[in-house]
Amino acid sequence: MEKFDVIIIGGGSAGLPAAIYAARFNLKTLVIVKERGGLLTSTHLVENWPGEIAISGLDLMEKIEKHARSYELVSIKEEEVLSVAFSLQRKIYDKKKAESSQEKETKNEFIVKTAKNQYEGKAVIFATGTLRRKLNVPGEKEFMNKGVSYCATCDAMLFRNKIVAMIGGGDSAVKEALLLAEHCSKVYLIYRSNLRAEPINLNRLEKKVKEGKIELIKGNVLEIKGERTVTSLVLEDKKEIKLSGVFIEIGGTPQTELTKKLGVKLNEKGEIIINENSETNVLGVYAAGDVGNHEFKQAITGASEGVIAAFSAYNYINRAFLSTERKSSSKERVE
Amino acid sequence: MEKFDVIIIGGGSAGLPAAIYAARFNLKTLVIVKERGGLLTSTHLVENWPGEIAISGLDLMEKIEKHARSYELVSIKEEEVLSVAFSLQRKIYDKKKAESSQEKETKNEFIVKTAKNQYEGKAVIFATGTLRRKLNVPGEKEFMNKGVSYCATCDAMLFRNKIVAMIGGGDSAVKEALLLAEHCSKVYLIYRSNLRAEPINLNRLEKKVKEGKIELIKGNVLEIKGERTVTSLVLEDKKEIKLSGVFIEIGGTPQTELTKKLGVKLNEKGEIIINENSETNVLGVYAAGDVGNHEFKQAITGASEGVIAAFSAYNYINRAFLSTERKSSSKERVE
Repeated sequence: MEKFDVIIIGGGSAGLPAAIYAARFNLKTLVIVKERGGLLTSTHLVENWPGEIAISGLDLMEKIEKHARSYELVSIKEEEVLSVAFSLQRKIYDKKKAESSQEKETKNEFIVKTAKNQYEGKAVIFATGTLRRKLNVPGEKEFMNKGVSYCATCDAMLFRNKIVAMIGGGDSAVKEALLLAEHCSKVYLIYRSNLRAEPINLNRLEKKVKEGKIELIKGNVLEIKGERTVTSLVLEDKKEIKLSGVFIEIGGTPQTELTKKLGVKLNEKGEIIINENSETNVLGVYAAGDVGNHEFKQAITGASEGVIAAFSAYNYINRAFLSTERKSSSKERVE
Repeated sequence: MEKFDVIIIGGGSAGLPAAIYAARFNLKTLVIVKERGGLLTSTHLVENWPGEIAISGLDLMEKIEKHARSYELVSIKEEEVLSVAFSLQRKIYDKKKAESSQEKETKNEFIVKTAKNQYEGKAVIFATGTLRRKLNVPGEKEFMNKGVSYCATCDAMLFRNKIVAMIGGGDSAVKEALLLAEHCSKVYLIYRSNLRAEPINLNRLEKKVKEGKIELIKGNVLEIKGERTVTSLVLEDKKEIKLSGVFIEIGGTPQTELTKKLGVKLNEKGEIIINENSETNVLGVYAAGDVGNHEFKQAITGASEGVIAAFSAYNYINRAFLSTERKSSSKERVE
């Protein structure tokens, strides 16, 4: 069984920056990715990665992956992780027990299993992302990145002075519709049952509706039509709306199945709860990027969380592993 | 007096990403910089900005500045800010008063004065950085970026298998010496009076001293010598040490003078205390980058804090300004 200092699950814009920093901290690092590149790869044009005025998601991810691969200490394997568990050689971390004992810190080790292999790591970083919920209507897949988008913050400016629709009724959908209204000539906000947004956002929405900037439509979308790019959207009453962009914001599923055996705490949205050091409630387990519980999820913020996770893992490994190894050898102190 | 939505003070790797996102949120944005580029500009080789295997600090900052300038909503002015104060038209934010009143939120507006101009802003982001303390010995300035460095996390790998010195006796100096010991063949840790590091780090240090990786020297540095790059260091007892790199970690001064009039809270190190939303204790005032109170200060983490500050400013402006404007016009609600 190959041993690593840090095992990073996910190779997107959070996982790879974590790997870059882990290597810079001299940690032997494994990145396991199911599909290379993460969500960003599916973004046609990234305009909000500082320093890149306009770059395709694929190109940006390739730059970051190349950067990670430039370190000998980083291995990237394309495998599907089946399970992450505590190593049998180590006690499961029990915070109360640790506090009551003389040891300030206890430590964990982890076994990560894939279909073909099994790896051991002193720390694990979950950078597994979110699976965006799809509308599942004709045209959605075909016109993805050709007018269909899942991120208004990323893509609003591409539709400046154009007509777009926002599909969704939650607070995120309403907020993203408001952002679209800053850039687009007209925004149709299409929701199924009711608008479940914060009062403040409903107030702002009302104002934009009065101005004629946003039009509310209660109903279901039947189809997204287009030629090379999106040209219209068909509602269930067969009404067709001419437009250039369709934004879909109907939630997503944070990819946290693998955290369950470890007892990693999630919030009510199913996201991994991390603190400002990217630490979860389990010692040696970190998370970064879209799978985490931060409200504002951007490539640059996820990258920062990944980098911070690597820093925390480095500190943890030094504290938990190197200090106990030292203890057995000597009791002297530096003056 | 020209009015802006957001005024960002500082144009480094935190301030400019904040400007990029502020523009993307359709906010009229002013960046005021004393010296363009911030600390990063003085870094010869940046290897830890994800996606850039090796880029000069100047080139990276130019890319980010060009990105910020690509938005019409962003103005960048090279001026020295003399003061930041609450606008007279607005009440100073008093949290207790606000809580006891019916209004959930009150709002501020700010006047930013420079030698030549005066600007009004609804929100202010401090991205003013830290002034690193210098040794002030001959050769320090001359060989800066030619063997003299102020950031081991950034530059350690440039000195792989080489002999270096770390100057400083605090916890940061000890930790950076330990990181250097991961990469360099030998590290001299030179401190003046005593080593003021956490016990855990002193333990690790002791181990590296036993291994012969780190050598402790109590004393003062008289001079840094070199030809094209650093070749040696002279101690006060005239002893000369041959080496390739000199790292200086003797603290710094967070640039917070301008926050005083606003009552922005600082920590014991003089850094601006911000939360995970880059908010300070003062409504409408944000901070990002090296001037903030995060332990791990990197270009990528500062950029993320800047981006989050812009998001928070956008939310604040919508909440505090647009909703009250709305209130006076209508009481209807969206169904």
